[in-house]
Amino acid sequence: MVMEHDELKYPGSRRVYVNGLLYPELRVAMREVTQEDTLFPDGRVESNAPVRLYDCSGPWGDDDFRGNVETGLPRLRESWISRRGDVAADGEGALRASDPAAPPTQRSYALRGIITPEMEYVAIRENLGREQAFKAVYDCFPNAKSRPEAAQILLDELGTGMPRPSELEAQAGFSPASMTDRANLCYQHPAENRPGGRMPAYFTPEFVRDEIAAGRALIPANINHPELEPMIIGRNFLCKINANIGNSAISSGIEEEVEKLRWAIHWGADTVMDLSTGADIHRTREWILRNSPVPIGTVPMYQSLEKCGGRVEYLSWPIFRDTLIEQARQGVDYVTIHAGLLQRFVPHAARRATGIVSRGGSIIAKWMMIHQQENFLYTHWDEICAILATYDVAISIGDGLRPGSIADANDFAQLAELEVQGELTRLAWAAGVQVMNEGPGHVPLHLVPENMRKQLEWCYEAPFYTLGPLATDIAPGYDHITGALGGAAIAQRGCAMLCYVTRKEHLGLPDREDVREGVVTYKLAAHAADLAKGHPGAQVRDNALAKARFEFRWEDQFNLSLDPHRARAYHDMTLPHSGAKKAHFCSMCGPNFCAMKLTQEIREQQNIGKSQLK
Amino acid sequence: MVMEHDELKYPGSRRVYVNGLLYPELRVAMREVTQEDTLFPDGRVESNAPVRLYDCSGPWGDDDFRGNVETGLPRLRESWISRRGDVAADGEGALRASDPAAPPTQRSYALRGIITPEMEYVAIRENLGREQAFKAVYDCFPNAKSRPEAAQILLDELGTGMPRPSELEAQAGFSPASMTDRANLCYQHPAENRPGGRMPAYFTPEFVRDEIAAGRALIPANINHPELEPMIIGRNFLCKINANIGNSAISSGIEEEVEKLRWAIHWGADTVMDLSTGADIHRTREWILRNSPVPIGTVPMYQSLEKCGGRVEYLSWPIFRDTLIEQARQGVDYVTIHAGLLQRFVPHAARRATGIVSRGGSIIAKWMMIHQQENFLYTHWDEICAILATYDVAISIGDGLRPGSIADANDFAQLAELEVQGELTRLAWAAGVQVMNEGPGHVPLHLVPENMRKQLEWCYEAPFYTLGPLATDIAPGYDHITGALGGAAIAQRGCAMLCYVTRKEHLGLPDREDVREGVVTYKLAAHAADLAKGHPGAQVRDNALAKARFEFRWEDQFNLSLDPHRARAYHDMTLPHSGAKKAHFCSMCGPNFCAMKLTQEIREQQNIGKSQLK
Repeated sequence: MVMEHDELKYPGSRRVYVNGLLYPELRVAMREVTQEDTLFPDGRVESNAPVRLYDCSGPWGDDDFRGNVETGLPRLRESWISRRGDVAADGEGALRASDPAAPPTQRSYALRGIITPEMEYVAIRENLGREQAFKAVYDCFPNAKSRPEAAQILLDELGTGMPRPSELEAQAGFSPASMTDRANLCYQHPAENRPGGRMPAYFTPEFVRDEIAAGRALIPANINHPELEPMIIGRNFLCKINANIGNSAISSGIEEEVEKLRWAIHWGADTVMDLSTGADIHRTREWILRNSPVPIGTVPMYQSLEKCGGRVEYLSWPIFRDTLIEQARQGVDYVTIHAGLLQRFVPHAARRATGIVSRGGSIIAKWMMIHQQENFLYTHWDEICAILATYDVAISIGDGLRPGSIADANDFAQLAELEVQGELTRLAWAAGVQVMNEGPGHVPLHLVPENMRKQLEWCYEAPFYTLGPLATDIAPGYDHITGALGGAAIAQRGCAMLCYVTRKEHLGLPDREDVREGVVTYKLAAHAADLAKGHPGAQVRDNALAKARFEFRWEDQFNLSLDPHRARAYHDMTLPHSGAKKAHFCSMCGPNFCAMKLTQEIREQQNIGKSQLK
Repeated sequence: MVMEHDELKYPGSRRVYVNGLLYPELRVAMREVTQEDTLFPDGRVESNAPVRLYDCSGPWGDDDFRGNVETGLPRLRESWISRRGDVAADGEGALRASDPAAPPTQRSYALRGIITPEMEYVAIRENLGREQAFKAVYDCFPNAKSRPEAAQILLDELGTGMPRPSELEAQAGFSPASMTDRANLCYQHPAENRPGGRMPAYFTPEFVRDEIAAGRALIPANINHPELEPMIIGRNFLCKINANIGNSAISSGIEEEVEKLRWAIHWGADTVMDLSTGADIHRTREWILRNSPVPIGTVPMYQSLEKCGGRVEYLSWPIFRDTLIEQARQGVDYVTIHAGLLQRFVPHAARRATGIVSRGGSIIAKWMMIHQQENFLYTHWDEICAILATYDVAISIGDGLRPGSIADANDFAQLAELEVQGELTRLAWAAGVQVMNEGPGHVPLHLVPENMRKQLEWCYEAPFYTLGPLATDIAPGYDHITGALGGAAIAQRGCAMLCYVTRKEHLGLPDREDVREGVVTYKLAAHAADLAKGHPGAQVRDNALAKARFEFRWEDQFNLSLDPHRARAYHDMTLPHSGAKKAHFCSMCGPNFCAMKLTQEIREQQNIGKSQLK
């Protein structure tokens, strides 16, 4: 698998960087999509502001970047970390906390009231292109005395939902006819009113710090992963998605894994989990970390078991502990640990329709069966937390008893483990460790709210990170979609990150196209949830794309979409001529039968959209 | 496009027919999937009952059917219709009501207390294979005195959710260890408690009659479409899906349209709308109707406009009326009529972000602009209803002002039309016509419930039939998925039928694979909603598939899925050897690392699943 350069480029886009205020040296990467002008039938021309989008691709997405896989990415965070003065190199070049009592974790800083560069970075990142959108709508408020005043009006209103153009008309001194298009462009539906939701109108570094201190959010950022571009996981931010990569006994090599990483983040994976179980686990991970601008997660139990030659009976706390330290020193940003699966839950799980389907869960369950002892991850939790705090590795508390079928959803075994996850969350927080909780799995849509409600309550509002959940079992081959249904439903209610599922789930190993389809599917599910949650920057992109569609700006419609290559390819299949990209109709109805075109005629007759200010 | 026979066969399946009780001559078609035995490690063998599935493919899905496209399908309903003695042939061979005061509509029969063969047919159809599932679990109740008694216990319990195996254990005289698997197989989660939901434990013909009389459901079944296998649309039944076909100026021929029909119903389209706008509209429709076992819907405005050479200004009530009669005489089962879009709503719609995106809506809006007159579909509503009642054509009241973007969702124009749809619903009901209401479109997830709530309230619980709705605008190329997100969310709340959207939506015309992907995607969304609504037969299929998955019965897992060909193909990609279909592991983790296998070992150690009765 060799990456074609073209496939990794977004058409009509350029990389832009936004500087910090607290930390002026910060350069937060975004992708900016430029747009064509709107051409009115009467000859008028109006420009369309560029749209700024969240960008996970790191330096790989910057045309000017000249690095390569062998040299790895620039060490963006190196100076941020060293300047804090609280870490020291161990004997072999890895950093660790100088003073165990003051762990170098984002949680610890947040609790001490420190706003880190990582926090400002994510604040800027979460705001997307909102300032940009404000500028475009500024002229909607001709009576505002100054640009800042107009911006403030918009800030206030975008936070709770921008008024519709028809409502704006009621405002004195405001000329509606001229503003319809631009006001529509900034319109944002009021958010759903969710208990505990506190989506701000604008993300500030202080807001980020506060959310992290409260445990409602985390920035997975190992001090040994300086290549990382910080991102935040929490329900009052954009919903994130994770893509899994990793070789297994039956699959792939190292170069292929790095290519998979680049491919996944190109399409928008916010974090990547390396679930390798085959040979060369350590070396594979090294390549991935040194080339990854996104947080890397692992399940250390897999490598531990490899060290035992796959024999569960040989597993032990020392083997696991050493593996955990090895991975933490290497730079892994978060680890899944199935510490909530207790011995007494196993008989309940074994009696289910589909038993235990989590790999990590079934390993530890079998270990407990063999040794007739309590889960050593649970009994050594304090030591685990101490190790992770030393490097700022975040914990993703695994759900070893997640349901593997609709039948098993929300059953005793699942919920019993969730309660223990809550208990472990508090202990980890006390050790200064950042935490999230993993969740199901397979859940019918009407049982999704119960999952979210209980997780928030029992786990003290720690971020939830679910696998799907899949809303039905009957669609193997389409499980990216069954998972997106449940994923959107739970993210809408506050789930902070969705682990993607590919269409090969339950059937085989995903290839390149499966990863692309899977990532894009979860991006759209996460975005649908962001709209529902009322993330203040979410609807800007929908509005811009809808306007482009309405005005038959085909290229802009493609370029603003999650997968411009596919959108364009599908258009080409019916209307391949390049002239069709300028056509004021599409293939669905043909030139004489176009609803959009008819509406434009009606609009023109009514003089709507014509500027009366000019 | 020539259909390969293999592509239209479901592996491991056979056609079965279930007879009626009120009408013993009824033969309700179902598909039965046979399953392999479960092989336990200790050498025991247990059989797995076959699973009966809803089947839309009609005679085309019966291996013994020897007909062809030229001769058309058998006229299943001919004798049912003639025996009622209330219709007569007109001069040219079409049937019509003999007495306008007693229209031959299912609504009229229902109101008069008559249970028609169509009603019994759909009752049997909706029960799916539940009797079959009961038999499989019968032995779970060894203390029940008789088979009917056991069946009654199950009936009672399945209606409100079957207890979990762990709860069954509490019952005296019940041996849990032997029953785990089979009890899991029948487990059904309690339904979500929705206002107005009245999902029964078992569908009876009387229940069907009552729902139709109340207007909560309809059986679209034109007396001139005797080839139809009746199906019901209503929120207390299985959620249905519609697929659109139809040629346009840029596309296809007649044979191709019939092939598209067969392809769509093979994958599970419950109704098909013929949206042809090109040449040969009448003849295309004739071929489709004579070969369709599912209801055919149209938008008569399209053909009316063709008759005017595409010139909206030439449209008139007489042209539309004649077209409506032509289509009703031919056998069209339901028609979309955009009568709710009133003149005063047009300025509101024109000021939207994306104006009017419904083709029918924009045609009538332009007509009103040109003629400065009220919508002639609204002003002639009584005459429209009288025509449709004469042939039992159902009305699908169009939503010409459905939002074409997230920005326009739930706005004044959309909701204003919805209120008029309610008014028109009552008038149509009074004329004996069966009614459903069309709905959006593009709606963010948090605004979906408002759509459903207002439609139920304002349209007196008439069935809702939505296009998607699409949960975001940013994913052209993936709009089958954005539509499935909104579709599952609204169907879960009671939307009765979802119009599919293909991945080519907004971009081009769907091909064969797009139709397959689109239909399967909407089937899974509808099924996810049926699980949430607590349809008593829904979870049986999930449970059977999950059990097959857990026991590594790969062939059964494929055969029970919505798209067995794809499921098998994806498995083949990683593990192509036929032996892998018997392997007790899969490609995700490899043979030494399988969660399912580990759980089975734990289960065996705990003696779970071993029969103690034998």
